[in-house]
Amino acid sequence: MAEGGNEEVVSNKQVILRDYVTGFPKETDMYVTTTSINLRVPEDSNGVLLKNLYLSCDPYMRSRMKHSEEPDFVPYTPGSPIVGFGVSKVVDSRHPEYKKGDLVWGYTGWEEYTHLSEPQVLFKIPNTDVPLSYYTGLLGMAGLTAYFGLHDVCSPKKGEYVYISAASGAVGQLVGQFAKSAGCYVVGSAGSKEKVDLLKNKFGFDEAFNYKEENDLDAALKRYFPEGIDIYFENVGGKMLDAVLLNMRAHGRIAVCGMISQYNLEQPEGVTNLMQIIYKRVRLQGFLVFDYFPQYYKFVDAVLPDIKQGKIKYVEDTAEGLESAPAALIGLFSGRNVGKQVVVICRE
Amino acid sequence: MAEGGNEEVVSNKQVILRDYVTGFPKETDMYVTTTSINLRVPEDSNGVLLKNLYLSCDPYMRSRMKHSEEPDFVPYTPGSPIVGFGVSKVVDSRHPEYKKGDLVWGYTGWEEYTHLSEPQVLFKIPNTDVPLSYYTGLLGMAGLTAYFGLHDVCSPKKGEYVYISAASGAVGQLVGQFAKSAGCYVVGSAGSKEKVDLLKNKFGFDEAFNYKEENDLDAALKRYFPEGIDIYFENVGGKMLDAVLLNMRAHGRIAVCGMISQYNLEQPEGVTNLMQIIYKRVRLQGFLVFDYFPQYYKFVDAVLPDIKQGKIKYVEDTAEGLESAPAALIGLFSGRNVGKQVVVICRE
Repeated sequence: MAEGGNEEVVSNKQVILRDYVTGFPKETDMYVTTTSINLRVPEDSNGVLLKNLYLSCDPYMRSRMKHSEEPDFVPYTPGSPIVGFGVSKVVDSRHPEYKKGDLVWGYTGWEEYTHLSEPQVLFKIPNTDVPLSYYTGLLGMAGLTAYFGLHDVCSPKKGEYVYISAASGAVGQLVGQFAKSAGCYVVGSAGSKEKVDLLKNKFGFDEAFNYKEENDLDAALKRYFPEGIDIYFENVGGKMLDAVLLNMRAHGRIAVCGMISQYNLEQPEGVTNLMQIIYKRVRLQGFLVFDYFPQYYKFVDAVLPDIKQGKIKYVEDTAEGLESAPAALIGLFSGRNVGKQVVVICRE
Repeated sequence: MAEGGNEEVVSNKQVILRDYVTGFPKETDMYVTTTSINLRVPEDSNGVLLKNLYLSCDPYMRSRMKHSEEPDFVPYTPGSPIVGFGVSKVVDSRHPEYKKGDLVWGYTGWEEYTHLSEPQVLFKIPNTDVPLSYYTGLLGMAGLTAYFGLHDVCSPKKGEYVYISAASGAVGQLVGQFAKSAGCYVVGSAGSKEKVDLLKNKFGFDEAFNYKEENDLDAALKRYFPEGIDIYFENVGGKMLDAVLLNMRAHGRIAVCGMISQYNLEQPEGVTNLMQIIYKRVRLQGFLVFDYFPQYYKFVDAVLPDIKQGKIKYVEDTAEGLESAPAALIGLFSGRNVGKQVVVICRE
């Protein structure tokens, strides 16, 4: 202990990015190490000191593991901890908006404790009647993405035909349920029988199929959408997008949320059927959840009652311990996870 | 002459599509023949008999020269005349909305006289103080496409950066001028020095370049748009679209009007940079001019004063005689035309 009780140094386990990644990421692209951290916010800081409880594994993180000049997607720093969304408890604070004991979710480090000198994306957790881990997904970034990606980007109308790829994932499972609530006919695709069963029997999709069992995606979509697709929620890209473009209805909308099939390719696949967007007057709209952060509490008010009443189903795939985080993240890209991939560092 | 003066048979020269076209179209995919036609609308018809004056050559026509199951783009019938937009005079009518002597523009045959049993796209020409040929372009389909494609699809704001490919063509030259009127910074590309000069010196674009002289389209766009592109008016597709995607600004809009570089390919080029539309929240919106036909006279009211005052510049490339029509149409795909390609059958 140092002067004025202003030091309380503890050990701090971290997941470090070894170097920029090319191709398919591997567990060994990261390593776990232990350093130490002072649990008191330094006097010259306006920040917070967080104890991290739950971490979120998200496909977009792959984009930050590579070197990029992209100003909107700042790469991780090799040799430093991975950064992502997580649920944390405030251990110390010199920031006027947060006080010791607050539960928060937002950007944090993949480590036991994180000092944020300038918290930029950090929300106070509005309700603890639901599992805290939900704030890594359903009531965090994934929920916000699904809700505004569907409602704001796609404007679903009752009776419209909605298709969702990667449908059992954190975002897809919610888009499907929100679309059902809006009165749409909803079909999802996923990569295993177990996931397809979840879509049909737990999440209430009208139909679902295993894309790995379809040699001809165009034919599969024609089978499930004989009238065509009004809304496509795009999580996959590449060949899937090309097949969807052949099946869009006039004035259809495609919310481009992610393209997980492309993230590990050195050169993305070419999409060849873009002329369809002229014939069918399709709107293809990219969006980022960051733009909807100011509407976070509005979103919570809209969905929390349905969550508490059990009307919204939600499946998490939980990995225990920070040491399991690299494998959990890598598993997203082979579809190993079933539902939202969470890492538990500690439960309180 | 037959009973009741109900027949007046004259010879009728026609441009016939020989067969469905694959690859780059050739003049010999069409042939000129002479048949005969009765200039009186049959008693059991509700139609009109048109004398065709000016024909419009448009890139979209290539899509109708091939076999397709596309319900929104009905193929031409081999052995029958080409169909396209044109300016005509009503010679006889049993339709309540049209009378003999009316000047009209709309869908007609590539022939001297056309009997339309059910006129579906046929507008009465609202003003004859401007050259009649303008109704094949500036005051017809191309003008309507440029006006609503820019204003409705792209919502240009003062100071925004606008890029137009195939910029000296019928639509591009107008989009550029409308965007300048809206206070935008406008750059166009075209395929010859003559066209680039037109863009800069006649149509008032801020900058223009010859894409054939650029080995690296991405680098060229970075030179002309160091701040990036807010609005791209897409007439070209393929490699050009891929380069543009690398240069879009956040919340940019792409109006997808046509993809002339792709129409003659058996397999379209793949577009690989679509992930940019996520990072930049880009909206890629296909549209068809047909959807704006109900607003045609509103468009005329908006632009006619500027046309009469010479504020809108317009360049036509005129081919004389129906026999020249096949070569004029084919020339679009090698960029032979300078400005709007018109075929004159007869001037009154």
